[in-house]
Amino acid sequence: MHNKTMRVHSDDVTRATKEALVRRGVTLEDIAEIVYAMQSPYNEGLTMQHCVSSVDRVLNKREVQHAVLVGIELDELAEKKMLSAPLQQIIESDEGLFGVDETIALGSVFTYGSIAVTTYGHLDKQKVGIINQLDTVPGDHVHTFLDDLVGSIAACAASRIAHRWRDLEEMGQTFAAVDPVSFGKKVKKLAEI
Amino acid sequence: MHNKTMRVHSDDVTRATKEALVRRGVTLEDIAEIVYAMQSPYNEGLTMQHCVSSVDRVLNKREVQHAVLVGIELDELAEKKMLSAPLQQIIESDEGLFGVDETIALGSVFTYGSIAVTTYGHLDKQKVGIINQLDTVPGDHVHTFLDDLVGSIAACAASRIAHRWRDLEEMGQTFAAVDPVSFGKKVKKLAEI
Amino acid sequence: MHNKTMRVHSDDVTRATKEALVRRGVTLEDIAEIVYAMQSPYNEGLTMQHCVSSVDRVLNKREVQHAVLVGIELDELAEKKMLSAPLQQIIESDEGLFGVDETIALGSVFTYGSIAVTTYGHLDKQKVGIINQLDTVPGDHVHTFLDDLVGSIAACAASRIAHRWRDLEEMGQTFAAVDPVSFGKKVKKLAEI
Amino acid sequence: MHNKTMRVHSDDVTRATKEALVRRGVTLEDIAEIVYAMQSPYNEGLTMQHCVSSVDRVLNKREVQHAVLVGIELDELAEKKMLSAPLQQIIESDEGLFGVDETIALGSVFTYGSIAVTTYGHLDKQKVGIINQLDTVPGDHVHTFLDDLVGSIAACAASRIAHRWRDLEEMGQTFAAVDPVSFGKKVKKLAEI
Repeated sequence: MHNKTMRVHSDDVTRATKEALVRRGVTLEDIAEIVYAMQSPYNEGLTMQHCVSSVDRVLNKREVQHAVLVGIELDELAEKKMLSAPLQQIIESDEGLFGVDETIALGSVFTYGSIAVTTYGHLDKQKVGIINQLDTVPGDHVHTFLDDLVGSIAACAASRIAHRWRDLEEMGQTFAAVDPVSFGKKVKKLAEI
Repeated sequence: MHNKTMRVHSDDVTRATKEALVRRGVTLEDIAEIVYAMQSPYNEGLTMQHCVSSVDRVLNKREVQHAVLVGIELDELAEKKMLSAPLQQIIESDEGLFGVDETIALGSVFTYGSIAVTTYGHLDKQKVGIINQLDTVPGDHVHTFLDDLVGSIAACAASRIAHRWRDLEEMGQTFAAVDPVSFGKKVKKLAEI
Repeated sequence: MHNKTMRVHSDDVTRATKEALVRRGVTLEDIAEIVYAMQSPYNEGLTMQHCVSSVDRVLNKREVQHAVLVGIELDELAEKKMLSAPLQQIIESDEGLFGVDETIALGSVFTYGSIAVTTYGHLDKQKVGIINQLDTVPGDHVHTFLDDLVGSIAACAASRIAHRWRDLEEMGQTFAAVDPVSFGKKVKKLAEI
Repeated sequence: MHNKTMRVHSDDVTRATKEALVRRGVTLEDIAEIVYAMQSPYNEGLTMQHCVSSVDRVLNKREVQHAVLVGIELDELAEKKMLSAPLQQIIESDEGLFGVDETIALGSVFTYGSIAVTTYGHLDKQKVGIINQLDTVPGDHVHTFLDDLVGSIAACAASRIAHRWRDLEEMGQTFAAVDPVSFGKKVKKLAEI
């Protein structure tokens, strides 16, 4: 049953998404570093600031926000042993054939096209940067969903840069012509998607 | 960190999946009725028992089981107000643009091919049978994930029947030639997928 | 092997996409009518012009353009009997379990989120408006891919409107406040995705 | 319009699929080598013959067969310059943001679960074995779709092995207990999916 009176404002969802990542030890810069490492060899003029902006923009997307909130909630509940059996055990042990972690991450990845999907798959196997750290952190942390979410956000931000690069090529320009601040800014016009 | 010693046996996962559905008020027969309504006009000789068997077989698939366990867990936690804000509010109110419920359901649907995807979309809009009842049940029930999961299981079971129908046509037969029991039985041979 | 010297300009791809649809008997208005029928009951102030603009905007997306060009090419080659066996026969007969038509259509649909996927599934079964006409047109026309492509474009445009509606609600407005022209205009700023 | 009289028999589709791969220079063994390289470190007792059998079994799936037939048809038509502009140019130049090649490949990959999707993404970036050779073969060959199709078949076959490995673990066995021939055999019983 839809209950309009309970609707959460999108600004609150955006804030909660970013806070959840920081609470779990992942900064925008951590994700941006993965993006920079992947894209800088191919996209002239690209800076870390462009990558941070692109990650920030991805995190403004509803589909991505909801995936992050659900995944981190499940990780935290598993850490507190608050899930019921056998799900508690499956998530806690990061069972290789679980699949729901990848499925939730893929939901956001799809919105950036099929190129983002292959990038995500690559990151999932290579475990670059913070993704690897999450996977090997000592203690009783559960990061079953978080590593997939970080890979998904990085893949989306990288795909966004690759699409923009194509536009720049047609204009005879490089990322040197792109203001890093406006690259991440959500255009607040009605004309925009 | 993978921890093999904690692995749950697949039989326990299968049992937990079926119990979770029953606990939430959904029987195999409820789902089979949706399947029968969709497929019986096209597949000569199809009986309710074939449909129950097909639903049962779908529920033996890992990808489906994990989706069901995660979705129902989130519904139940939301019902008990145990999720953190703003996720609690988003799931409780079945926010139309949430999307993670559909994403999780689609994860299983994909494993039965693109025909299953369109069937799932159709069920999600039409809200046939038990899906509609879940959506309109009185009280403080949260069925944000459950209705999508039921639609997904029905779509998978229907797609499985449609694929089998094509095989029967090539053999010049109808479902009258198919033993309903063996149609649902998991072949326990190593040769099987 | 990538050959940058042969790259087609994106404006040429956009033009070719729209021309291909018209050549196959589908106007932007035909698709917009499906969108209007679906969304107008829920989105106050929505006009046909908003729907035409939304369809136009969807058709500016690379992922959608490539899907349209490939699908229509295959339909036309099948019509001219220029495909090799057995693909010629499979596409010509619109074999129900073919699936590649849905797969290609879904590729674009995914970029508008999981809500677009269920809308697409619904349209694929209900065969609203021009989709139904394509399916029943007399003569030797092959529309195996086209009907799925039209459903996919309509689902994307409808999903774009549903997402925008949510933004409008938060601002206390309806579509009456949205200029139909700017709603379809591609913002040519570097800040934009 | 569906025309049942024109239906191609599934055996003919299977044969055409395997012939198409061989005609384009890809043997089952080439694909099996990718699978073996990926899975043998994790799956005790796995042999090349198990991998060949798994590839063979994947190639018996309708969803995979149709993807292969469509992709290779488009590669061959592009090689013969028989596609219309601008699609001819886009496919010929293997335009990085084309996406339909990945979309068609992903259609089959999905049927083997989300684990297969990440494996496919990995192969698409790493270009292991025959995939790399296809990408760098001299002459006017067009392999825009073929490299993605090979990656997709390998990912499906590897995922099938990973799922079976999990079953073997529960039985306290390794692949040493699995007859390579029966692992690839399509069970011709009505009980089978």
